[in-house]
Amino acid sequence: MSSQNQFRQQSHKLLVIPGPIEVTDEVLYANAHPLVSHMSLDFAAVFGDCIRMTRDVLYTKSAQPFLISGSGTLGWDQVSANLVEPGENVLVLHSGYFADSFADCLETYGAKVDQVKADLGSVVSPAEVERALKSKKYKVLTVTHVDTSTGVLSDIKAVAEVVRKVSPETLIVVDAVCSVASEEIRFDDWGIDVVLTASQKGLGAPPGLSIVVASERAMKVYETRKTRITSYYGSWKKWLPIMKAYEAGTAGYFATPPVNLIYAFHASLSQITKGSVTLEERFKLQKDASSRLKKAAEAMGFKGLPLSTEVAANGMTALYFPDGLEASDVVPRLLKKDIVVAGGLHAAVKTKYFRIGHMGVSAIDAQRGDIDKIISALKETLAEAKASKKA
Amino acid sequence: MSSQNQFRQQSHKLLVIPGPIEVTDEVLYANAHPLVSHMSLDFAAVFGDCIRMTRDVLYTKSAQPFLISGSGTLGWDQVSANLVEPGENVLVLHSGYFADSFADCLETYGAKVDQVKADLGSVVSPAEVERALKSKKYKVLTVTHVDTSTGVLSDIKAVAEVVRKVSPETLIVVDAVCSVASEEIRFDDWGIDVVLTASQKGLGAPPGLSIVVASERAMKVYETRKTRITSYYGSWKKWLPIMKAYEAGTAGYFATPPVNLIYAFHASLSQITKGSVTLEERFKLQKDASSRLKKAAEAMGFKGLPLSTEVAANGMTALYFPDGLEASDVVPRLLKKDIVVAGGLHAAVKTKYFRIGHMGVSAIDAQRGDIDKIISALKETLAEAKASKKA
Repeated sequence: MSSQNQFRQQSHKLLVIPGPIEVTDEVLYANAHPLVSHMSLDFAAVFGDCIRMTRDVLYTKSAQPFLISGSGTLGWDQVSANLVEPGENVLVLHSGYFADSFADCLETYGAKVDQVKADLGSVVSPAEVERALKSKKYKVLTVTHVDTSTGVLSDIKAVAEVVRKVSPETLIVVDAVCSVASEEIRFDDWGIDVVLTASQKGLGAPPGLSIVVASERAMKVYETRKTRITSYYGSWKKWLPIMKAYEAGTAGYFATPPVNLIYAFHASLSQITKGSVTLEERFKLQKDASSRLKKAAEAMGFKGLPLSTEVAANGMTALYFPDGLEASDVVPRLLKKDIVVAGGLHAAVKTKYFRIGHMGVSAIDAQRGDIDKIISALKETLAEAKASKKA
Repeated sequence: MSSQNQFRQQSHKLLVIPGPIEVTDEVLYANAHPLVSHMSLDFAAVFGDCIRMTRDVLYTKSAQPFLISGSGTLGWDQVSANLVEPGENVLVLHSGYFADSFADCLETYGAKVDQVKADLGSVVSPAEVERALKSKKYKVLTVTHVDTSTGVLSDIKAVAEVVRKVSPETLIVVDAVCSVASEEIRFDDWGIDVVLTASQKGLGAPPGLSIVVASERAMKVYETRKTRITSYYGSWKKWLPIMKAYEAGTAGYFATPPVNLIYAFHASLSQITKGSVTLEERFKLQKDASSRLKKAAEAMGFKGLPLSTEVAANGMTALYFPDGLEASDVVPRLLKKDIVVAGGLHAAVKTKYFRIGHMGVSAIDAQRGDIDKIISALKETLAEAKASKKA
């Protein structure tokens, strides 16, 4: 066979970790596109579409996307190397594992980093942000939209409002690796400066693409920096002409883009931005699926890691094991039922909880029944685990 | 359909640029593997195999491979950020466009770079290497095995011999993006310290994987560096435990690997290292195909950019247009015949030549007839182009 209509992905365990996620047959088939020249006009048109659709997902008209071969982590390097100059101050809002890592990255490139840390399961409040911003001048503030380690959701709109009020020149950088296309992000309306993400979570494609979107204000800061950019592969000076060339329908060369993944990303972006479900409906369906799963899990006796519904992500769920149970009681049993979940990641409670991802088709395409499958597998697992303890 | 036996890639133009290249149906089907967890044991086994087979391709027992989501260019950053400390001296042997870029990357991370430049179409002689190494102490020497811009082939064995004789502590870094699996590289026997490459050329997979292999000596230099590593995403401190974990059959997490591409890379490496054609036969077939194409092109009146057969690559061919013809006479006509070649890239002669890639299956699988297709398309194109000039 050699056509889209005939291609079905192999049967496999249901992948419900917080990324990579389940993707559609169309996306996988696009990933098996014959190899093409990265300098061809056909490919440039596809790449250009990806740039435009990336803007659409974030409701931005004027921001500059960078689509670069790499993991989401490379977005941190891009921010650290292009927007921060050695010795400059950065404020990191900490709501889990990924803030520590982002801070580590920033320091690698010479930033002076202060962190405001939320309690485990919570987020930094607007009042704390205001206090920190009044105490020192920060070039950049970073906030993790959804911390993949805790499933905690930050209120980006509220954070941005505080920054614009208290320290309008501070750039607002949102680590949205685990939120883009799963949580609403109004880039222009909220006045965000950078969104960084990756292809394998809400965006519904295989991993391998670092996606960074920078506001006009961020690009001006980049353009007027005084010192040399401190990364080569992540240098916007190298990549900006390439992105502009592809968007104009021509091709440019700095380093070879992941051509197949760009086709896959195009397929997924097309489903997200031009499919039968609008973006607004998508965010609603995502919330509904999340709420249904969370309520069912709580009814079974699982407790969520986020301290309240308001700070709980809609694309993933982090659950403490009920008293007397641990990872080895739950995760392998789910695996036997062909449900792949993720273990704990946050050092403070690593062995005490697990994580379920429910982004993309698992939440949006009700016909798949993924949420129901997860709920009934959880129920069975819990019953089996409890029974084994009594035996 | 959902099985390997049924999958055939879509019909498409023959891609004979110097990477990405034509790949097999098996490789593309592997790239359409259902998404899996990067932390699963199944995936760890596949990743571990890729590490081992990468060693096999380079005839090394003890070197440490790094397989990281990114383009080949990321390998330059890894060398610059892990092996060189700010202010240290690096000698770059220049045989084309890519030496300038590598030098630019090294300088980004603070290296002091000297270049020894070969004439266009030639390579730096061992005598020149010796002279340069005697004039100054260099921490690192870099040499481009095959410069993709010129199709010029450096004699890595000869360069390594000079380095080991004159300046044994200098690390030998080979930019082998356009040579691994197309040109013989005896990593251990020749005493190389770093080979850096990418997935989309001789290695026969889609682009998106940076592959760097470091000798024990290089790893010792990295371990004993005095200053902080100057990249985060490219830091071996972050990646080494991950590579060791995957090789041991477990999983580690720093940044999400490109899981589908790892399956595709595994499929291609299996064909290269465990297929019906041995590695030794592969290099011979590669030479035969190259020689046949080059002789045919010369008989038609095309002149090769490399100054002699000895310095001409076996996986690609760079040809000057015959007098009176230019890119617009040749490249679009080849495209109409469904043959995709690449234009010039080296600034000095950019409009005067073009490039043909013939790595991987195009050279090795004679049944495809790719080399014959290229030769006859070139013949027809030349006749048409000349006729159009007379008209």
